[in-house]
Amino acid sequence: MTEIEHVDETVESDESAPPADGGFSRRALLGWTGGALVVGAAAAGGVAAAVTDDATPAGPSHGAVAFRGAVQAGIATPVQDRLHFCVFDVVTDDRAKLVRMLRQWTAAAAAMAAGDAIGTGADSGVPESPPDDTGEAIGLPPANLTLTVGFGPSLFTKDGKDRFGIAEKKPEALADLPAFPGDNLDPQRSGGDIAVQACSDDPQVAVHAIRNLARIGFGVVSVRWSQLGFGKTSSTTPDAMTPRNLFGFKDGTRNIAGTETDRLHEHVWVPAGEGPEWMTNGSYLVARRIRMHIETWDRTSLVEQQDVIGRSKGVGAPQGATGEHDPVPLKALPANAHVRLSHPDSNGGATILRRGYSFVDGSDGLGRLEAGLFFLAYQRDPRKGFVPVQQNLAGKDAMNEYIQHVGSALFACPGGVAHADDYWGKALFG
Amino acid sequence: MTEIEHVDETVESDESAPPADGGFSRRALLGWTGGALVVGAAAAGGVAAAVTDDATPAGPSHGAVAFRGAVQAGIATPVQDRLHFCVFDVVTDDRAKLVRMLRQWTAAAAAMAAGDAIGTGADSGVPESPPDDTGEAIGLPPANLTLTVGFGPSLFTKDGKDRFGIAEKKPEALADLPAFPGDNLDPQRSGGDIAVQACSDDPQVAVHAIRNLARIGFGVVSVRWSQLGFGKTSSTTPDAMTPRNLFGFKDGTRNIAGTETDRLHEHVWVPAGEGPEWMTNGSYLVARRIRMHIETWDRTSLVEQQDVIGRSKGVGAPQGATGEHDPVPLKALPANAHVRLSHPDSNGGATILRRGYSFVDGSDGLGRLEAGLFFLAYQRDPRKGFVPVQQNLAGKDAMNEYIQHVGSALFACPGGVAHADDYWGKALFG
Repeated sequence: MTEIEHVDETVESDESAPPADGGFSRRALLGWTGGALVVGAAAAGGVAAAVTDDATPAGPSHGAVAFRGAVQAGIATPVQDRLHFCVFDVVTDDRAKLVRMLRQWTAAAAAMAAGDAIGTGADSGVPESPPDDTGEAIGLPPANLTLTVGFGPSLFTKDGKDRFGIAEKKPEALADLPAFPGDNLDPQRSGGDIAVQACSDDPQVAVHAIRNLARIGFGVVSVRWSQLGFGKTSSTTPDAMTPRNLFGFKDGTRNIAGTETDRLHEHVWVPAGEGPEWMTNGSYLVARRIRMHIETWDRTSLVEQQDVIGRSKGVGAPQGATGEHDPVPLKALPANAHVRLSHPDSNGGATILRRGYSFVDGSDGLGRLEAGLFFLAYQRDPRKGFVPVQQNLAGKDAMNEYIQHVGSALFACPGGVAHADDYWGKALFG
Repeated sequence: MTEIEHVDETVESDESAPPADGGFSRRALLGWTGGALVVGAAAAGGVAAAVTDDATPAGPSHGAVAFRGAVQAGIATPVQDRLHFCVFDVVTDDRAKLVRMLRQWTAAAAAMAAGDAIGTGADSGVPESPPDDTGEAIGLPPANLTLTVGFGPSLFTKDGKDRFGIAEKKPEALADLPAFPGDNLDPQRSGGDIAVQACSDDPQVAVHAIRNLARIGFGVVSVRWSQLGFGKTSSTTPDAMTPRNLFGFKDGTRNIAGTETDRLHEHVWVPAGEGPEWMTNGSYLVARRIRMHIETWDRTSLVEQQDVIGRSKGVGAPQGATGEHDPVPLKALPANAHVRLSHPDSNGGATILRRGYSFVDGSDGLGRLEAGLFFLAYQRDPRKGFVPVQQNLAGKDAMNEYIQHVGSALFACPGGVAHADDYWGKALFG
């Protein structure tokens, strides 16, 4: 692991050095707080969470999102096009090793988010040693890469054991999700100790990031499960075209926007004093792998499809309305329509920030595509967010004929890495 | 299936109608043969194979590739960023049903390549019927979508039976690939009757295309296996940045370029009189799913990695040379280096056009990412292309310590759909 030790130095010294390959200097990123995309951190009263680089052409694929901030990037950040989500299990009992890895991960994440190689890069350093960076992202801009970390219930206690002396810091909100009617969860795609959500407009960049964290974590963590998503199904930029899920419908029309400071504070960010201190400015992530039976759906009439959703397929207007963004006249929708049942007004105001992605993982051996939605939702407290909404949906949603929840996990995502001495989990372990 | 019957009419009538949603009119596409990307078909003396649309901003994500041509698009076409490859098995004995589906597929493919919806689209037609189009690509440009069809050995004969009266038209070059040392092939990811390669710069567009072909083919074909690729590992545009594979090395530096007419004719396109007539202007596709043990690779020294490949990791220069595109001084490379063993000069001139993609399909249950290369190679005759090269590699390649071939298939891809009455397989079945 000694080859990682100098990562911190490299990253820090980068701030006064030009980028080696025409990429992004950290100085440019962190020095400019007047950019267009000041979202999450600013909303939480902290450092700017996202700025764009002005030295490169406009467009999502050339942007960079600042890694440091009061809140983690990758939550309220405009949703990138591609996802690599990975859940690790810790395979050591050694707390010091785990903390060291989290420091190394943080330094590597900061470098990658800035478009820099990790450490001495892929082709330098000591030739008789493995390179510090695996190399497949050489020459690629970060494409708005964000890396967001979360800690699962099993990291705190497992088989009744306080694994790393942090059991008493486990938030009550991190209680295991209840079983929902219709769940058919695969333990191999559920749970886990530490999650990293890598989002980027370039999948090669997202995969590179996860792969290098796994490499750095060798001997400390092991990949429990991993999910790629090829297309975002919800956006946090309401002025952009609303993306469509694999049912062919617009998804996330009424999602919380990254610019909605008040709604973010009310529904997404954990305020100081709510739960353990280390979760201040954090959020809780629910991940659900939802298999969609698209072949059945595709043989369903347009009328039935629209009744299941509660919106028109083309425009995306709520039934009983004409425009996509019109208020939803709930009583005009069928009683078991998905949009009606999941609406905050049907769930005592429960509201979640969605960030899911479509997936196709080959075929299922039964002549069908293994397709679905990898649902990701952030919220201030899952007991007041995902849980009541899903309890409502699981029993009644007309969509249940066409979907099945096959994986599930919950993570506590701490506040942002605020300064150079901070690292993922410092407030929890430090 | 009646909802598909009008597809042909819709597509044809589109040529004189403006696009409904500001997308691409087929007239604009097919009428302009002066575009920048005249590649495959022109090389074969036919219709222009690829033009770009001038009504939209420059950049790969807004282009469209003409569907019709003397050769199929998606072979010599500049390699797009994303892949959805799908192999179907025919589940009917009814030749007429199969032919009807191939006609329907062709019409749908032509529409999708032009950026049009299939038939009456996703939200019109008869509301009491399933829509003609599943809808998730509404509003998305085709992003250079190409759909390339191939027929596997089992379509011709299976269990000794001439399934559809085409056994005598089976090319000798479509002989089953031999077993290679080290192969560990999963039958669930190998073989199959009909392949469709969907490539696009937008994965949602590629997935939409495969999903709709599967929908149209319901009752005639069933998905045997399917593979998504997130990053191209070879390019056919030598002036562009050479992409990198998951070993972090540049891949395809000496690949056949889409502009190299002579090499395409010598190594890729089947000339008239070579094999059955229906394969004129066609090509043979070898698909190999190659698992890469990236965790082992990542613990290997830079020196060892470069010796395995035979090129430097950063620049990609052959060992003994200084620039990526320098001639490869074969004898300067280690005897078992991958680049040396796979070089045409080490294989009696055998040369293939590569079009592979990196994949990560979650994790393998053993703590590792399920990562690798989905290798796709086109050639005039696999017995003079992939087979001798792989025979050389399978026994000696130093890379074999880090890879394993876990899936394999071979398809005969006919010439292009040349005119409006033509369809995929007409020369074979018609």
